[in-house]
Amino acid sequence: MNIAVLGAGAMGSIYGGHLSLHNEVAMIDKKQELVEKINADGLKILENDEDTMYYPKAMLDSKDLGEVDLVILFVKSLFSKVALEENRHIIGEHTYLMTLQNGAGHEDILSEFAPKERIIIGTTEDNGAVLDNAYVRRGGKGKTNIGMLVPDTDKMLQRVKESFDSCGFDTHIYDNIQQLIWDKLFTNVSLSAITGVLQVPIGFIAADEYAWSMTVTLIKEALAVAKAMGLAFNEQEVIEKVRAISINSPEGKTSIYADLKAGRRTEVNTISGAVVRAAEKTGVDVPTHRMVVNMVHAMENRDKKQG
Amino acid sequence: MNIAVLGAGAMGSIYGGHLSLHNEVAMIDKKQELVEKINADGLKILENDEDTMYYPKAMLDSKDLGEVDLVILFVKSLFSKVALEENRHIIGEHTYLMTLQNGAGHEDILSEFAPKERIIIGTTEDNGAVLDNAYVRRGGKGKTNIGMLVPDTDKMLQRVKESFDSCGFDTHIYDNIQQLIWDKLFTNVSLSAITGVLQVPIGFIAADEYAWSMTVTLIKEALAVAKAMGLAFNEQEVIEKVRAISINSPEGKTSIYADLKAGRRTEVNTISGAVVRAAEKTGVDVPTHRMVVNMVHAMENRDKKQG
Repeated sequence: MNIAVLGAGAMGSIYGGHLSLHNEVAMIDKKQELVEKINADGLKILENDEDTMYYPKAMLDSKDLGEVDLVILFVKSLFSKVALEENRHIIGEHTYLMTLQNGAGHEDILSEFAPKERIIIGTTEDNGAVLDNAYVRRGGKGKTNIGMLVPDTDKMLQRVKESFDSCGFDTHIYDNIQQLIWDKLFTNVSLSAITGVLQVPIGFIAADEYAWSMTVTLIKEALAVAKAMGLAFNEQEVIEKVRAISINSPEGKTSIYADLKAGRRTEVNTISGAVVRAAEKTGVDVPTHRMVVNMVHAMENRDKKQG
Repeated sequence: MNIAVLGAGAMGSIYGGHLSLHNEVAMIDKKQELVEKINADGLKILENDEDTMYYPKAMLDSKDLGEVDLVILFVKSLFSKVALEENRHIIGEHTYLMTLQNGAGHEDILSEFAPKERIIIGTTEDNGAVLDNAYVRRGGKGKTNIGMLVPDTDKMLQRVKESFDSCGFDTHIYDNIQQLIWDKLFTNVSLSAITGVLQVPIGFIAADEYAWSMTVTLIKEALAVAKAMGLAFNEQEVIEKVRAISINSPEGKTSIYADLKAGRRTEVNTISGAVVRAAEKTGVDVPTHRMVVNMVHAMENRDKKQG
């Protein structure tokens, strides 16, 4: 397949690098130094204590690239729309758009660039980190879970799975992918949101009665939205899972924590904001999620204004 | 009258000092140095650019003090209960308890120590600051607004007013004192709470759309509770008043801001917490206030735990 990967951060590099084994991959990123390094020397991935070189193409923009079969979004979600706009000309009548980004509701933006029939959403359990320019570590190989918003009449998911699996991924197709996306979302909209606002490590959540109370409230609101969407979860199981994450990674930091700490804009709009938008669509009230979204944005603005 | 003032901070000193002009005043405070200084040299109050000496009695505890006519609480509200417990023996069958503390719902604690018929609640527009040991500044003389929870059959409010006014206060009696208390509360539970959590000056609130959105949500929830309590406010007027405070004191700091900044426990339980308790009594849902109370307590614990 002809694949364009938008965003060559840790995850974009892991997917772009591996997929280049059996596909024509173009990695599109704004970092000139990174693009030049990948084109000159290749992309190095540390995996199982071993460095391997991969040779995808890299480019600052896609103006010389024609329409592709698949566009995979790996930019931070707050840049999704801009990234798709800038690369609109590689999205043709047969191009599929795919997001494995954190959070939920990314299909709202993708739908502006392709019909529902050509949108693939999902989650990845892979994780990684940037070690150096054009050098990333693949932390662990997990499942890549994919699905569509409508029935997959063209069997694209099967083709994606075969291609991904041949390149070292463990891809699973789901009829109800939203169930998986929301299962992952509960942790992000509760524990991650609160650790971000409070600027505390993950362990604080289960240890502090007030932080835990907020976390449970956020989970319950999100569960009410999921239920209204037709998704089924066991409340006690979800709560216990979040508690276990807090207890088992006491010193862990979440991305909202890290972004706010560094004075960067966060992905709260596709994390807690996804619950707020889904709540509006389904007529559920989520005052605590609205509060979290406002709080995080106010913190972003505060730190921007203070320099 | 025999008056005991619990807490000799800025406000306790302003009231205790002035009231000692025509009353027997005992100021009870935990600060040995302060008690000794007041007893040795008196209490100095700077007012209208002039220092005046006052000579109330001061004591670390009230064990040698008999039952008094009036106990005025000026400790931080989170110490109200402990202070009343320690001084329970000065509260006799005819003793009135009075609070002019910030926030609302103080009568819940006072009711554990005296019947409703002997509880006086209110607000003070006076303000002041501690300049040195036994030396405070009275910033401005405002109104002292008082009322009772039940009809004042014994005409105590009139006696209090006469005594207070003769000592330099401007005392006003209200049949519906909760109306005044809540009018003041709206600013504290919205603007003060949010500036505390965000650690921003007052001006940030009206200037930032997200902070302002949270502030309006908090005001509306509190107004719904006030309405359920039988109090009547004009929503737009209340919102505009809070906005004006934000615009007119851009660099001002609130007490919740200052307490959190200094790693101290805040008075959130009698500010936002008062709305939550009143909401529970009246069957109104205030999820955003519950969130604020939990958030502030989590911040208190976070800073305590981090040292």
